[in-house]
Amino acid sequence: MRFTDLLRQEAGPIWEAEKQHPFVRGIGDGSLPLDRFRFYLLQDYLFLIEFSRIFALGAARAGDLATMQHFASLLHETLHTEMALHKRYGERFGISPAQMEAAEPAPTTIAYTRYMLEAAWRGTTADLAAAVLPCQWGYAEIGRHLKETGDTSEANPYRDWILLYSSEEFKATGDWLREHLDRAATESGTGDRERWRALFLTGSRYEYLFWEMSWRQERWPV
Amino acid sequence: MRFTDLLRQEAGPIWEAEKQHPFVRGIGDGSLPLDRFRFYLLQDYLFLIEFSRIFALGAARAGDLATMQHFASLLHETLHTEMALHKRYGERFGISPAQMEAAEPAPTTIAYTRYMLEAAWRGTTADLAAAVLPCQWGYAEIGRHLKETGDTSEANPYRDWILLYSSEEFKATGDWLREHLDRAATESGTGDRERWRALFLTGSRYEYLFWEMSWRQERWPV
Amino acid sequence: MRFTDLLRQEAGPIWEAEKQHPFVRGIGDGSLPLDRFRFYLLQDYLFLIEFSRIFALGAARAGDLATMQHFASLLHETLHTEMALHKRYGERFGISPAQMEAAEPAPTTIAYTRYMLEAAWRGTTADLAAAVLPCQWGYAEIGRHLKETGDTSEANPYRDWILLYSSEEFKATGDWLREHLDRAATESGTGDRERWRALFLTGSRYEYLFWEMSWRQERWPV
Amino acid sequence: MRFTDLLRQEAGPIWEAEKQHPFVRGIGDGSLPLDRFRFYLLQDYLFLIEFSRIFALGAARAGDLATMQHFASLLHETLHTEMALHKRYGERFGISPAQMEAAEPAPTTIAYTRYMLEAAWRGTTADLAAAVLPCQWGYAEIGRHLKETGDTSEANPYRDWILLYSSEEFKATGDWLREHLDRAATESGTGDRERWRALFLTGSRYEYLFWEMSWRQERWPV
Repeated sequence: MRFTDLLRQEAGPIWEAEKQHPFVRGIGDGSLPLDRFRFYLLQDYLFLIEFSRIFALGAARAGDLATMQHFASLLHETLHTEMALHKRYGERFGISPAQMEAAEPAPTTIAYTRYMLEAAWRGTTADLAAAVLPCQWGYAEIGRHLKETGDTSEANPYRDWILLYSSEEFKATGDWLREHLDRAATESGTGDRERWRALFLTGSRYEYLFWEMSWRQERWPV
Repeated sequence: MRFTDLLRQEAGPIWEAEKQHPFVRGIGDGSLPLDRFRFYLLQDYLFLIEFSRIFALGAARAGDLATMQHFASLLHETLHTEMALHKRYGERFGISPAQMEAAEPAPTTIAYTRYMLEAAWRGTTADLAAAVLPCQWGYAEIGRHLKETGDTSEANPYRDWILLYSSEEFKATGDWLREHLDRAATESGTGDRERWRALFLTGSRYEYLFWEMSWRQERWPV
Repeated sequence: MRFTDLLRQEAGPIWEAEKQHPFVRGIGDGSLPLDRFRFYLLQDYLFLIEFSRIFALGAARAGDLATMQHFASLLHETLHTEMALHKRYGERFGISPAQMEAAEPAPTTIAYTRYMLEAAWRGTTADLAAAVLPCQWGYAEIGRHLKETGDTSEANPYRDWILLYSSEEFKATGDWLREHLDRAATESGTGDRERWRALFLTGSRYEYLFWEMSWRQERWPV
Repeated sequence: MRFTDLLRQEAGPIWEAEKQHPFVRGIGDGSLPLDRFRFYLLQDYLFLIEFSRIFALGAARAGDLATMQHFASLLHETLHTEMALHKRYGERFGISPAQMEAAEPAPTTIAYTRYMLEAAWRGTTADLAAAVLPCQWGYAEIGRHLKETGDTSEANPYRDWILLYSSEEFKATGDWLREHLDRAATESGTGDRERWRALFLTGSRYEYLFWEMSWRQERWPV
């Protein structure tokens, strides 16, 4: 069994809770109130700016040129393809990219991005992969799940979101990160694997919290 | 007005909310239930391990030998004086240092430590100072506040906590970090100062959340 | 006077020594022996792999999205446009990219790349700019100098080298880095400016040594 | 055979060349001209400031508290015990610590320190150990070699140098780093071990070059 399959299995209840979350279901059937999606959109835009830094660190740390080029491509894809989706949704809401960049980050946006980034600064490219997989792989799984079970007609305002994250191109980015981590896992000790497990599980919990944050339009208590 | 005085002023309501928090008041008058303190103790032990790394990064980045030596001293003090307090409290609860190190970090412990650490990896020693000051300066202020208003008799089980954090030695560590940041602030642009302000305010919010986490014995929702 | 003009002025004798170096003159008039260029080609390929990491670190540390996108572009340009030149020259010598990547780095290749990279890991994006400018700006100046004074006919085997580095596109990359550093210099103290000066001067010396290394086909003494 | 024994064996000719170097032999029999030692002293003082940062990064990256405390001790020892030797020698030459800190770093001092530091920023604590072992283990071996074969009477002005580096306390620091790397090597792939081998061999070459730099009182050519 692949190492990442073991991680996925252990995180099963968390990933299932994500799929059942009203925010995710609301994207799927189009019933999600627009103001909640708007909140998510701004937070996810800020999220992606920080997320991009992680792939940049992957390129900085890569053990060979092919790996460096791959991380550079992930950086490029995130900054262009993925953030383009957000800009298009921003336009519909009448929010400019500059306004999106200037939004105030909510607590979970800060906690989750710094968590992944810190792992990327401190650790190896395998640590980095373990930290970002709950997002990169998770979105692909949720995207496909919603494409199969949800409404992808023009009537669903979140159709473009579903189409991007259910695409083969997007899935491929997570697949490559899984292979990167699985390869590292075959040449490592229990200490490394335990650290990657913790990164993956905590990252999965933050994915859940990110939906929850968006649903509740989270704010600092003080 | 010193730059850090401006920061302290803006964070006033957050720091005041900390002093009013039932966990802090419970330390002050000794009424805090032991199980809540025990929860805090384990989390704060894990916190201090990560916190030490930040001073290590300060030593790695220091611009001159005197600054490097100072950060190395802060690292030494945290690993020895401050963590010794936790070990002594651990003994009273029958928890060994190894058990403390093996505790499961609560969500806010992870969020707050990674937040500070990421700022330390990404930024300068001034960024680092802005990120740790809400803890290092804040504990000194709370310690002194509780020494003045609370119960420091042998009857208070949290007496040692109050005595350590109200000590002149502990206060000096925060004073030095303030001077470090104030010096940087005189030779910087608005972009730098705005970043330090955000680090300080968010750090202050996390200080509040750390009391809240301990009071509620926080757990992940999934 | 711009800060980078001051740096350029102080480094004047070093940059002039570069232009007078037999390796550089040999590129200009096409008289450089092929085996020396072949040595340079392999070393410069290894150099560019490490150099790319610096721009990746610039993206990881960028203070805003526009700066991040710019560093990501520099990373992309280096990995594609610039390294494509080396691959084309490699083909002429019958050396595959994999063989180029597997070459043994010469002492100055290691010393110079680690010097710049360490500055990028330790410091800010302005430190990074100060460290890479002697290369990015210097190559543009040497390229233009050779285009004006050298042989750019088909007879010169180094014609493509001269054309790439004298191009407006290549010059623009250095210009942007200069602006980045000049902007930082207007909002900084003497300590910062002195550190940037040292990075720029030492980097300029390493540029000279890189020509010297290639000319002598440098090896470790032990 | 331990991994570090394999490394030591492969680096044999380099380490032997170090022992035969006139600078090392001159320390051993006391014949080294004072001006050359003075040059070395200043460069080694600058070296140790940068070297300390590596141990600080080890503490920042340590996988558990015991390892963190050990790296913090190495930082402390280097900043205090080892640099105290340099200060005492400085006094004999009438050079204050501030003057030593303000000395101009020679090319090899820069190249070697940045080489190790960059490995420490980019890699793991095992990378760090592989990079610093040629210094920490090498000095212990040379110290003991000179104690056995050289002049350790009061007549030798370099007696204190020999006594410090031949001490059991100093040897123990290298032993711990060896164990750290050996432990990592049992749980790693060929890619990791090859990288550590390259770090160790290049570090050994830089050790040789550092003696050579001091012997020739090296300067930049431009």
